[in-house]
Amino acid sequence: MPIGESELIERYFRGCGAERADVVLGIGDDAALMRVPGGCELVAATDTLVAGVHFPPDSPAESVGHRALAVNLSDLAAMGARPAWALLALTLPQVDETWLEGFATGLGELARTHAVALIGGDTTRGPLCISVQLLGFVPAGAALTRSGARAGDVLFVSGTCGDAAAGLALEQRRLQAPPEARSWLRERFLFPTPRVALGEELRRFASACIDVSDGLLGDAGKLASASHVGAELAWNELPVSDPLTALLGERRARELALTGGDDYELCFAVPPANIARLLMQLPPQEWRYTRIGALRAAPGAVVVRDGTVMEFSHSGYQHFS
Amino acid sequence: MPIGESELIERYFRGCGAERADVVLGIGDDAALMRVPGGCELVAATDTLVAGVHFPPDSPAESVGHRALAVNLSDLAAMGARPAWALLALTLPQVDETWLEGFATGLGELARTHAVALIGGDTTRGPLCISVQLLGFVPAGAALTRSGARAGDVLFVSGTCGDAAAGLALEQRRLQAPPEARSWLRERFLFPTPRVALGEELRRFASACIDVSDGLLGDAGKLASASHVGAELAWNELPVSDPLTALLGERRARELALTGGDDYELCFAVPPANIARLLMQLPPQEWRYTRIGALRAAPGAVVVRDGTVMEFSHSGYQHFS
Repeated sequence: MPIGESELIERYFRGCGAERADVVLGIGDDAALMRVPGGCELVAATDTLVAGVHFPPDSPAESVGHRALAVNLSDLAAMGARPAWALLALTLPQVDETWLEGFATGLGELARTHAVALIGGDTTRGPLCISVQLLGFVPAGAALTRSGARAGDVLFVSGTCGDAAAGLALEQRRLQAPPEARSWLRERFLFPTPRVALGEELRRFASACIDVSDGLLGDAGKLASASHVGAELAWNELPVSDPLTALLGERRARELALTGGDDYELCFAVPPANIARLLMQLPPQEWRYTRIGALRAAPGAVVVRDGTVMEFSHSGYQHFS
Repeated sequence: MPIGESELIERYFRGCGAERADVVLGIGDDAALMRVPGGCELVAATDTLVAGVHFPPDSPAESVGHRALAVNLSDLAAMGARPAWALLALTLPQVDETWLEGFATGLGELARTHAVALIGGDTTRGPLCISVQLLGFVPAGAALTRSGARAGDVLFVSGTCGDAAAGLALEQRRLQAPPEARSWLRERFLFPTPRVALGEELRRFASACIDVSDGLLGDAGKLASASHVGAELAWNELPVSDPLTALLGERRARELALTGGDDYELCFAVPPANIARLLMQLPPQEWRYTRIGALRAAPGAVVVRDGTVMEFSHSGYQHFS
């Protein structure tokens, strides 16, 4: 017999996330009640994953649960915010208990890692679609935005880019790879690591920040545009992973780093005056970020190689089709 | 040429809701920033509407926009909370600008009525599905919940029940009606009125509150169960509208009031000591609510007619099929 909504919520989602003392009333009433710490602003984001659009319909349930929260954690990380509470709007074609258990495991593990409580939500019948709303907070006036950068600020990105786009192509069999590279790259797509701790630290150094979800070149361009400046990225400095380079060669790996999606890394600008302090207090080897270029007065986002501007299409999704 | 996500958001959703001074940063960055008033708890709810499940696929776009927010406003009303900020996760099969304009109009008008700012969201491609997340606040410790009632508390409901279920049946041509009744009942389904002001006032009087979305009998039962008591409703006191009674006759109208869905009225319990003050300070004729029964020690929710307990199935959706 199919289980009802309230039983489903009881079984899979109560206690799925972290326990937090600032949750006055969690799952089970018409709405949830929380205490926001004094001196803080509330931060809110929502992102939706649709089966067949944002992930292959046969993705592991753990990955779907992980990614549904991760994409929102990445948004809050880009604001320098501390995540706290999540709501889940889950639309399911049918109640598949094995799938639900995997989904709740993937979501719950990442939630507990970041001390996020699942405070409420809604489960409905329909095509598989997951919206997570994530709430958190940031000291008043201290949030990072996309719009605070100036020409001359140095541009960085965390981690490596392009891995997730290759991982998705592997998942969809548009690309082949040896088992080890395949496993690592798929993991980068299926279980991205939102850079929450880095985002919070960057409040002390960065002038602007954005999360890289639609391709580094386009997202760096959005940061630049919101700041009314342009961005110049150095081809040779783009951080690409060894497995990606081994698989695609350096040129295609860097192209994918620029135009692939689903990285969930942070791209951030730092004023020259803060650079020395940044490098000392957040050592790049430990915090894993790379200088990739700078912001400049001329609008647009360009990539420069050996002094020459390169031409790019932004069609990241068509690389392997 | 189809418009892109950011243009779509610019055109239809920026400035769609109310402007609020407590929104530090609205639509357009990775997340939104808001100031929560001191001494308040944050209140959060989310509800999803799926085409073909929660509304007929050919529903007017204005109605879909209105209802997507109304169902969440009703959740906050049930907590006695003041709504403030909404996020919209909108999944669309294609960009239909006429539909989007209607949707934004319906959502925006209701948002402005309740001073709700649209602070962010996400638009994605996929089967038509709308999740709204609504945030608001309530003085710390003052929220209404489902669980505060005691045996002996008097049970009330706002407005009239069953109209929306009949309106949906008319919309789906499972039921026929003369033009005037048809028009009024359809309106009750398509454009429900969340009882936000009443919910805030009830904080001074009520011991528990729930919004009636799944049928009065079931929802009164949920309130009672959360409060560890039972509910006894008086058949003769159930508030039914004249158009509904004229269309279905008194017996079927009252049945539908008990088991139909989508009313978005408030069902609330008031301790005997507060009744006189309630009736004086919130005159029922003006605030439109009706005494429908009482809470009692014995668990369950029953309807009593002339001293006899009546039998009911809870299958509100099958009335006209």
